[in-house]
Amino acid sequence: MTTTQTRETEAVQRYRRACDYAAAAMIYLKDNVLLREPLRREHLKPRLLGHWGTCPGITFLYGGLNGLVRRTGQRTLLVTGPGHGAPAVHANLWLEGTHARLDPALSRDGAGLAELVRRFSWPGGFPSHLSPEVPGVLHEGGELGYALATAFGAALDKPDLLVACLVGDGEAETGPTAGSWHANKYLSPRTDGAVLPVLHVNGYKISSPTVYGCMSDEELVAYFRGAGWSPHVVDVTATDDPDGLLAEALDLAHGGIAAVRERWRPGERAVWPMLVLRSPKGWGVPARDAGGKPLEGTFRAHQVPLGGVHEDDAEFALLERWLRSYRPEELFDADGRPHEDLLAALPPEELRLGRAPEANGGRLRRDLPLPDLAPFAVEVAEPGGGTASPTGVAGRWLAELVRATEDRRDFRVVCPDELESNRLGALLEATDRGFTWPLPGTAEHVAPGGRVLEVLSEHLCQGWLQGYLLTGRHGLFPCYEAFAPIVDSMVNQYAKFLKVSGEVAWREPVASMNHLLTSEGWRQEHNGYSHQGPGFLNNLLTRKASTARVYLPPDANTLLVTLRDCLASTDRINLVVAGKNAGAQWLDLAAAERHCAAGAGTWEWAGHGDGDPDVVLACAGGIPTVEVLAAASILRERAPDLTVRVVNVVDLLSLAPADRRPHGLADEDFAACFPEGVPVVFGFHGYPSAVHETLHGRPDTERFHVHGYLEEGTTTTPFDLLVGNGMSRHDLAADALRRTGRDDTAVLAERDELREAAHRDGVDSREITEWRWGA
Amino acid sequence: MTTTQTRETEAVQRYRRACDYAAAAMIYLKDNVLLREPLRREHLKPRLLGHWGTCPGITFLYGGLNGLVRRTGQRTLLVTGPGHGAPAVHANLWLEGTHARLDPALSRDGAGLAELVRRFSWPGGFPSHLSPEVPGVLHEGGELGYALATAFGAALDKPDLLVACLVGDGEAETGPTAGSWHANKYLSPRTDGAVLPVLHVNGYKISSPTVYGCMSDEELVAYFRGAGWSPHVVDVTATDDPDGLLAEALDLAHGGIAAVRERWRPGERAVWPMLVLRSPKGWGVPARDAGGKPLEGTFRAHQVPLGGVHEDDAEFALLERWLRSYRPEELFDADGRPHEDLLAALPPEELRLGRAPEANGGRLRRDLPLPDLAPFAVEVAEPGGGTASPTGVAGRWLAELVRATEDRRDFRVVCPDELESNRLGALLEATDRGFTWPLPGTAEHVAPGGRVLEVLSEHLCQGWLQGYLLTGRHGLFPCYEAFAPIVDSMVNQYAKFLKVSGEVAWREPVASMNHLLTSEGWRQEHNGYSHQGPGFLNNLLTRKASTARVYLPPDANTLLVTLRDCLASTDRINLVVAGKNAGAQWLDLAAAERHCAAGAGTWEWAGHGDGDPDVVLACAGGIPTVEVLAAASILRERAPDLTVRVVNVVDLLSLAPADRRPHGLADEDFAACFPEGVPVVFGFHGYPSAVHETLHGRPDTERFHVHGYLEEGTTTTPFDLLVGNGMSRHDLAADALRRTGRDDTAVLAERDELREAAHRDGVDSREITEWRWGA
Repeated sequence: MTTTQTRETEAVQRYRRACDYAAAAMIYLKDNVLLREPLRREHLKPRLLGHWGTCPGITFLYGGLNGLVRRTGQRTLLVTGPGHGAPAVHANLWLEGTHARLDPALSRDGAGLAELVRRFSWPGGFPSHLSPEVPGVLHEGGELGYALATAFGAALDKPDLLVACLVGDGEAETGPTAGSWHANKYLSPRTDGAVLPVLHVNGYKISSPTVYGCMSDEELVAYFRGAGWSPHVVDVTATDDPDGLLAEALDLAHGGIAAVRERWRPGERAVWPMLVLRSPKGWGVPARDAGGKPLEGTFRAHQVPLGGVHEDDAEFALLERWLRSYRPEELFDADGRPHEDLLAALPPEELRLGRAPEANGGRLRRDLPLPDLAPFAVEVAEPGGGTASPTGVAGRWLAELVRATEDRRDFRVVCPDELESNRLGALLEATDRGFTWPLPGTAEHVAPGGRVLEVLSEHLCQGWLQGYLLTGRHGLFPCYEAFAPIVDSMVNQYAKFLKVSGEVAWREPVASMNHLLTSEGWRQEHNGYSHQGPGFLNNLLTRKASTARVYLPPDANTLLVTLRDCLASTDRINLVVAGKNAGAQWLDLAAAERHCAAGAGTWEWAGHGDGDPDVVLACAGGIPTVEVLAAASILRERAPDLTVRVVNVVDLLSLAPADRRPHGLADEDFAACFPEGVPVVFGFHGYPSAVHETLHGRPDTERFHVHGYLEEGTTTTPFDLLVGNGMSRHDLAADALRRTGRDDTAVLAERDELREAAHRDGVDSREITEWRWGA
Repeated sequence: MTTTQTRETEAVQRYRRACDYAAAAMIYLKDNVLLREPLRREHLKPRLLGHWGTCPGITFLYGGLNGLVRRTGQRTLLVTGPGHGAPAVHANLWLEGTHARLDPALSRDGAGLAELVRRFSWPGGFPSHLSPEVPGVLHEGGELGYALATAFGAALDKPDLLVACLVGDGEAETGPTAGSWHANKYLSPRTDGAVLPVLHVNGYKISSPTVYGCMSDEELVAYFRGAGWSPHVVDVTATDDPDGLLAEALDLAHGGIAAVRERWRPGERAVWPMLVLRSPKGWGVPARDAGGKPLEGTFRAHQVPLGGVHEDDAEFALLERWLRSYRPEELFDADGRPHEDLLAALPPEELRLGRAPEANGGRLRRDLPLPDLAPFAVEVAEPGGGTASPTGVAGRWLAELVRATEDRRDFRVVCPDELESNRLGALLEATDRGFTWPLPGTAEHVAPGGRVLEVLSEHLCQGWLQGYLLTGRHGLFPCYEAFAPIVDSMVNQYAKFLKVSGEVAWREPVASMNHLLTSEGWRQEHNGYSHQGPGFLNNLLTRKASTARVYLPPDANTLLVTLRDCLASTDRINLVVAGKNAGAQWLDLAAAERHCAAGAGTWEWAGHGDGDPDVVLACAGGIPTVEVLAAASILRERAPDLTVRVVNVVDLLSLAPADRRPHGLADEDFAACFPEGVPVVFGFHGYPSAVHETLHGRPDTERFHVHGYLEEGTTTTPFDLLVGNGMSRHDLAADALRRTGRDDTAVLAERDELREAAHRDGVDSREITEWRWGA
């Protein structure tokens, strides 16, 4: 080892000691944070919160990456899976000066350290887990499983970026993480950045051993090699110089990445490096607790080791001994400033990990060049005229958006292999499905660098898109409606991330997450019951008003307007539910613009009778709109004396009072649609409860009679599926007749006849599959 | 090859031809199903529904397994991941006579085949996907990803059972499947059955190539070897005798399994065999379609190949040629009965795959020997007396249940490594965490055969339990509340399976799925915002009334009663939300029994004032119950003139009208709790919308003012978290004062003072953490 190397290694070791010390201080101390005086009980926080176990490993990697960046100038972003190791990240951010830059109170001196240590896990301070309040962070890591997918999303279309991703061995057990290792096959060495996963094997979760911790090096290497990686094991327990070992491994990995970039040719595998890092859980904590039980390297080091310090003198003494073992007096000067040699271990200011511009992606976001809708809009000479597939039309417009962003490469579509099934195939005329591994000869529209990503994993799609949006880009996630709940929980966590980001002054707005759900339940009469499930919508209703939007455009032009507006919006999760099947069209582009801007409104042309309505037929969603219009037609024939109003709702949450949802209809606009005292028969796309919940707080909601999906139906015909759930045109018309004191027998008899015919013939009769409206 | 071998192989080949033919017929034909006359258009179904691509591979494996079972007598259950390949399974069930046994109309002759072919994907007939209507099935396979986890669950505690599991290469891309390969490390060769996964690599999903299809044999072998399997590749394209090749591989695998059983010793790896089966997608379909595009072995074979047969004469001719290529006239006699030699390929009657008793597990289910609650109940001399951790108490009772089932081994607990964190650690005194791989020396309570399964994958936990319950056993899934939505979608699909099972005459009731959610959001003030999320409850509300139950026992004794009742129930999904923190107790065991039986009721001792109440304070959930009782106490002090009633709700859905939920309170009982016209201030555990939704249909619901979780809060103190969401005792008392026309200023001022103190001191003041009730 040369003298320079020795000095470097020493600096890194001292840097780590400082970070480990500061992280431990955050968990235990509220005073005397530099241990300038003997530790006393009143220096301890009253509640000890935090997770020590993963902290030393995080700092070990952070420090190693600092060295790599210093040596190579590589632009690097770190995604930290074990977000419960927040103290380590805070310590590094403080030492590298990122904290002080954003908040002068966190200055790189004793006062700043005292403030940081006190603020950690303190009411009004920093949460115990990584969160949007923490610079450099674009992944919370509270709900484990998504770090790796997020890292891949961040690396897409960033050819000069290295995204290092620390994956805990607990997190590695999750399905989403296990599936994400295969995302390597989607990265293009030409147009994408690199992801360097570091699997952190410390052997224990909260109290159980980890699966990966019980695998041998041979198994781990075979597993990751099989998954297409070039793995390298860094075992700190097998060396006297862990920092040197890691530095060497990181240099090797960096070289390996450069080699892939240089040598890879289309049609070949791109085998990227990855690291397996073995280090003891809680590395550095005393070997045993005061009771003599093993501590370092065990599950007991997971959260707060020596948790009895408040009551137990022996544990208290052990804590002081442990904290002093970092010898803070050697690391910080009289004012609590870290010694210069520690800072020498850092990369240049602008390359420090906490300052990666991608971690505050809103600052990088540019508005999309959204193509004009007019050339793509469907001509609708009169309502009900024309026939079009809404997603088919949208696909052509989206393809134009892909072309318009060909140089910028900041718009992507992720999908669980349903793009063509969802009639969005036009996109594949503008780009390919991105995939880098060798392909079968019969594959079509698949090539490295393609900007559509298809994988049969909703988790990976969602994770990719999260990483892509949070680093300043734009995207769309089309999905079969029934399978979107697979990512309910991811979406919840992402919504939380957005909510908190909105409260952080220095975070700029990111492009909205856009879910386009199609192959909707009402047309899953062929795939059957498992493919019918509109519940993703309900889950989104539990999100904050500032975050969630739900749109149900009933035709092609309203879908175009909705998608354009969603893609122009920021910081939201937009759910768009739309049909893919060709059908009648209702609004021309101008009418669609007006209707979508209002959110909901009366369709004058669809109602009948004079003056105030006797009944309102309301609809939200493509199929319910057809059924409600047909119900209006039935009523026109069978009850010509009845005055019927038809109201269509595009923006579901516009039904909510404006004090709950800021875009809720004003009271007078709501009353204009639904005059007081008039019964409303509502044909709804999803579970009726979603409408009831949305209406909560509006006056006299008990007059809303909502028909929707009731979990009835299997493989059958579209009409039979509607009847089974009480949502057919006949059911809606019959309900309107009943609510206005009329007889519904004839209408229901017609329904039953048609249903029987469907069972007999195996198809719906033509009268049913066609729309019937007007005089 | 010996003559016997040749004859056997021929029989298997002919058996497969018959099945493939029948499967294809199901997709296309409604008449002339044996092609006794030239094919005409009117023989075709008007709508062509089904998925051909995976069918030949399913039959290939089914036939191979038939041979293995015939040769070895091995009791075998088949879990089919690609449920869209239902026609293949139906064909096999018809040929093996299982269909005829359960439904004489599906007799093993021409009439039965015609009936089966017509019923497939027909209104009122068999769905296009596998479903509970299909014998031998315990996994739908519509939403992909869970077959492998389910198979492992089925194999647990069934040492003489082989569970073969076909995993599609599309499904393999899902996170849950990728994570499930590691479940091998949990199977005990002594006490569990074996799982034989067969990864079916046919190269394409709906339209994209599959990830696993693009991996080389070397990569696949390394990957699975690394995951602890002994993989063997069966490539039908590389042999003239695919059936012989498969038979040999299955024999080898069977031998490998026997060897593991014999030779494995605790502390060693148990490396089980698995197969990778490469076969062309749609194997047997014409090589090209009428337009000359490649068909066999491509994505075009996924669903209905030659989809243009109704309009296109060339495709129609090609269809007939294809169907005739199976030469049905050689396979079926004049009456349409399969020739005897085909049947010779079958195992003995009782071992046929469709008849595995485990696939109708309700028939095997025995009631649990549920221990008497009394010895475990908490003594509660008076309400508010005693202190106990509800889950801690429950854990001791559950441990006794584990002991009581030690010989039967039909009760298990699955958990994402949170058992001890959730205070259920007493279970580990009765059993271990099951794990078979070599362990670190510091691991505790971990051993092969342990009946608790801990893995940091909610998906795997849920899949294990589904497989375990559906094969006739019992179980419990304790989970952090916030992370239960990870399995929202799995639970939806399982609920669908239960609903349809209930409609199938021959399916017997299975034990209920029991989710115990704890570490609830209100006490995640330390882990913070990501750990706060009660939305699993909302998702369950979208399930059928017959399936879903939601219980919120407020203390230890109500939790005991609830768990006992849940574990005695069948065919339901029971959600139980309960606290783990030690706290005051309200009901003694007798009172708890009465209260739980009622579902909801007035707590006379908690209210005050005389006569009809001015306001009702209602509560559901442990923390809201404490807050509501404390609010009643505040009101007693500050507004002694007010008559206050306290109502506690254990069974949330008892609030719903009985016509929507059969266990809803009768109208008079509801009115007895909530007298008409009286305002109700409701402290609720979760999102307020869940209560509003449940109350829908009750009279005058607008007087219910529900306080609950509003997505406000991070790492802070419990009191601060309550205040942030308007759920503190002060907020509830203030609301009651407002609703009864009184001033709330003083109460809110006290709240704000206490909140400030928490921010200053980093803890809640003692007044707040203790319960304050009574005169």
